[in-house]
Amino acid sequence: MTRSLPRVLLTGFEPFDGEAVNPSWEAVQAHEGREIAGHRIETLCLPVCFGESLGALRRALRRRPALVLAVGQAGGRAAIGIERVAINVDDARIPDNAGAQPIDCPVIRGAPAAYFARLPIKALRAELVAAGIPAEISHSAGTFVCNHVFFGLMHALRRRPGVRAGFVHVPYSPAQAARHPGAPSLPVERVSAALERMVEVALRCEERRESAGALH
Amino acid sequence: MTRSLPRVLLTGFEPFDGEAVNPSWEAVQAHEGREIAGHRIETLCLPVCFGESLGALRRALRRRPALVLAVGQAGGRAAIGIERVAINVDDARIPDNAGAQPIDCPVIRGAPAAYFARLPIKALRAELVAAGIPAEISHSAGTFVCNHVFFGLMHALRRRPGVRAGFVHVPYSPAQAARHPGAPSLPVERVSAALERMVEVALRCEERRESAGALH
Amino acid sequence: MTRSLPRVLLTGFEPFDGEAVNPSWEAVQAHEGREIAGHRIETLCLPVCFGESLGALRRALRRRPALVLAVGQAGGRAAIGIERVAINVDDARIPDNAGAQPIDCPVIRGAPAAYFARLPIKALRAELVAAGIPAEISHSAGTFVCNHVFFGLMHALRRRPGVRAGFVHVPYSPAQAARHPGAPSLPVERVSAALERMVEVALRCEERRESAGALH
Amino acid sequence: MTRSLPRVLLTGFEPFDGEAVNPSWEAVQAHEGREIAGHRIETLCLPVCFGESLGALRRALRRRPALVLAVGQAGGRAAIGIERVAINVDDARIPDNAGAQPIDCPVIRGAPAAYFARLPIKALRAELVAAGIPAEISHSAGTFVCNHVFFGLMHALRRRPGVRAGFVHVPYSPAQAARHPGAPSLPVERVSAALERMVEVALRCEERRESAGALH
Repeated sequence: MTRSLPRVLLTGFEPFDGEAVNPSWEAVQAHEGREIAGHRIETLCLPVCFGESLGALRRALRRRPALVLAVGQAGGRAAIGIERVAINVDDARIPDNAGAQPIDCPVIRGAPAAYFARLPIKALRAELVAAGIPAEISHSAGTFVCNHVFFGLMHALRRRPGVRAGFVHVPYSPAQAARHPGAPSLPVERVSAALERMVEVALRCEERRESAGALH
Repeated sequence: MTRSLPRVLLTGFEPFDGEAVNPSWEAVQAHEGREIAGHRIETLCLPVCFGESLGALRRALRRRPALVLAVGQAGGRAAIGIERVAINVDDARIPDNAGAQPIDCPVIRGAPAAYFARLPIKALRAELVAAGIPAEISHSAGTFVCNHVFFGLMHALRRRPGVRAGFVHVPYSPAQAARHPGAPSLPVERVSAALERMVEVALRCEERRESAGALH
Repeated sequence: MTRSLPRVLLTGFEPFDGEAVNPSWEAVQAHEGREIAGHRIETLCLPVCFGESLGALRRALRRRPALVLAVGQAGGRAAIGIERVAINVDDARIPDNAGAQPIDCPVIRGAPAAYFARLPIKALRAELVAAGIPAEISHSAGTFVCNHVFFGLMHALRRRPGVRAGFVHVPYSPAQAARHPGAPSLPVERVSAALERMVEVALRCEERRESAGALH
Repeated sequence: MTRSLPRVLLTGFEPFDGEAVNPSWEAVQAHEGREIAGHRIETLCLPVCFGESLGALRRALRRRPALVLAVGQAGGRAAIGIERVAINVDDARIPDNAGAQPIDCPVIRGAPAAYFARLPIKALRAELVAAGIPAEISHSAGTFVCNHVFFGLMHALRRRPGVRAGFVHVPYSPAQAARHPGAPSLPVERVSAALERMVEVALRCEERRESAGALH
């Protein structure tokens, strides 16, 4: 009888904002069932809906993953963005996929103003850059469903300090960018390779002391 | 005998990063001693130094202002940025004016991860845009001395819930932008006029329910 | 009896693309009738129409100005753009104010592929930067009515080599930029001051040997 | 005995500006000796040197290619840029690889101010976008060695009207962009695939009537 492997949960999102695909889910689903660094990868496609996305995520967290990496699309960004902080506010510039458009509501009433990612964010960036994949630390995950899921994730894990978790934004795919003149892109297979390296580094968990600061 | 007016504290910063001036202080100092909306304006020029800046700010807070608007330079931005949230991290890409360069340290050990501005940020934006002054909500004040001061300010006021307070980032002046090819600018006198309107709106304090959300 | 002064022609444009004003004309008209460097300023507001704009310009050229500076709006640019070259093509992304939308047509059939500005463009840039006004050399005036007028102007003057002439693009005014989130701006009075300096430098006409090259 | 195929010449550039590779040559060299649309592909790596680059190009033109596509790196651009026009000026912001830095010199003394590409530029863009590859029409190839080669190419072919020729700018590769924070990228294999499609379309040579105009 084999002992089951510890788990890593990767989540992506369904398409939104008129797109036919979402590169976060394209990149994540390639890893379903794989073994990386002695862990079994489980994947989940989240709806781009306030509330409902968090319900699906919480159900998946019951399976007690050792690491959770949530991934979302950031159209207009050129690099993989490793998010530093989730804030407790929903402020939707466009309706979500269920038509909801909360403005200046807390993600979770009574929860703290913010949570930091529990990831070695500098080590993750260094690994990707060394591998030739554009990557940057981001200080805002926005105020739409990505930040909502990121905040809800960290809140759900607030009493499980041993679980690593965070959020990563990924650029449009080239095919998406082709329809958005001027927009940068990164192919899904590069993003997918980046996710594998990020899982490895996040599980090893050594942080690097180097600046990724923004002046403003 | 005249009753003294309630106070508003406006802070700017000294120059940094090789600049000869800091448009935040240029715009702020024009208001020293003025009366706006029944309040007396007091101004303060903060050093661009971790730690020392907060010491100077705390001393000024003893004079019990009814509103505190801290202002800083954001070279590269095109609009006045009304900051939504301060985070509890110092991560300096360049040394401050005293040579300190903290990396991934808390602003205040043991304090919460973040504080939200206590300003009607949507009303402030609406007022400026209506007055023909470019303005936007910003979801990150960076991780340098501006965010440091913003976080320290909100922490210092955490038990004075009646005091309005927040942070505003301003673009380069045209003269600064002339030496940074491609950089946007806003004249100091426009910024100064914007600060007057912001003081009025912040004291009136009616928030507007309208989105300023960022998708990422 | 007084001898009349030699003339300088400044042209701006009427509003287009849904704007209520055009900062090029706002900045130009402030100089109507003024004397700068021993020349009388004449101003002209051109329609944003292919063809018709050139007809109006050619009529004004009959008054034999010594210098012609045509000015147009470049929404999205942060600096005053001193154009280096006009190309012989109309390619309209949007209809002009008369509804015409030529695609890949020559401005003037049988004319050369391009004309260079007859202005000391580096000296103009140096003057503005020294005066604290953001300025840059631009290598494309686009393919809309601005380039159309610039090309037609240089073609009309092809046999008058002593006449200085060129084109300058100016950013949105702050009030325009306030309605275009993220767009840079420059106040009309700064643009107006810049035009006065440019007239002086263009009439003095000493070029500077310094790079303004673009790698691509 | 086999009849030899008509030729297509693809040129790329050696690395410059401190880069270890040049994606233009990486993408071009993959096609050396291949047959595309009944033509034999010949490739050439040009030095990033004013003058010398044109000498090497002219020697290759003696082999009478039916189509010449010159390709260069445009760090900072997000899409494949199909250049519309080459201008007769060298203005180098940085020295070339031989240390030369011409400022405001003609590429070829006595030659016209500009040449247009002899390519169906709109059809090329439409093909790439349909294939999911970001592409755009560009109205300036800059004033460095890329424009120099583009202008020299069109001048050399001015009496061979049947030969198709033009210039294409390509973004950084992801590995390059990883070292230029914020810079967009496109993988070399996508660029290489794009070049194959562009050769096919350029040889078929049907232009499309659709706008690619820039307002400024």
